[in-house]
Amino acid sequence: MNARQTPYYAVIFSSRLTDDIAGYSDMAERTEQLAKLQPGYLGFESARNAEGLGISVSYWRDTAAIQAWREHIEHQSAIELGYQRWYQQLHIRIARVERSYDWERT
Amino acid sequence: MNARQTPYYAVIFSSRLTDDIAGYSDMAERTEQLAKLQPGYLGFESARNAEGLGISVSYWRDTAAIQAWREHIEHQSAIELGYQRWYQQLHIRIARVERSYDWERT
Repeated sequence: MNARQTPYYAVIFSSRLTDDIAGYSDMAERTEQLAKLQPGYLGFESARNAEGLGISVSYWRDTAAIQAWREHIEHQSAIELGYQRWYQQLHIRIARVERSYDWERT
Repeated sequence: MNARQTPYYAVIFSSRLTDDIAGYSDMAERTEQLAKLQPGYLGFESARNAEGLGISVSYWRDTAAIQAWREHIEHQSAIELGYQRWYQQLHIRIARVERSYDWERT
């Protein structure tokens, strides 16, 4: 995601997975593709380290866009499966991005 | 970091590294330890994936704490080295955390 005019919103999602991660990466990929189609979607970035901590941040125009995505039926199914099988621990934070700085080596 | 009363602040730092990462992980570790000693520090989480995208999020009581940490002399040195050697690309976002949700499998 490139620089955009603030304010906009970020959903900071950090998680640790269980040992039963069958199906997880397919679902994560599908959910990311589906998110891109939602109104107000601005961007997404995700990383998971060797110790199992994953951080995904999705960016949205406003809280209404976040709420609509949260209520999307396919997303709801993914969330439900996550609670049943995949997540050991999670933290979700909704944050208003007030300043943004981008830099690239030239 | 556990649940805390909102609002507080997050610095979302995402980066891609150059091929010259000698010294990077030592500096990142030292900088993280130093951050923990700063007034207003609330927490930190970090992940870097196999494709080289890293996301670090630090949490702070308010923007004054973020500004003070930004101006810390040792942190400034780390930032300078980062620009000289380690970062290919980076995005920094300062965001006000408005809602927070934590869950753990029992």
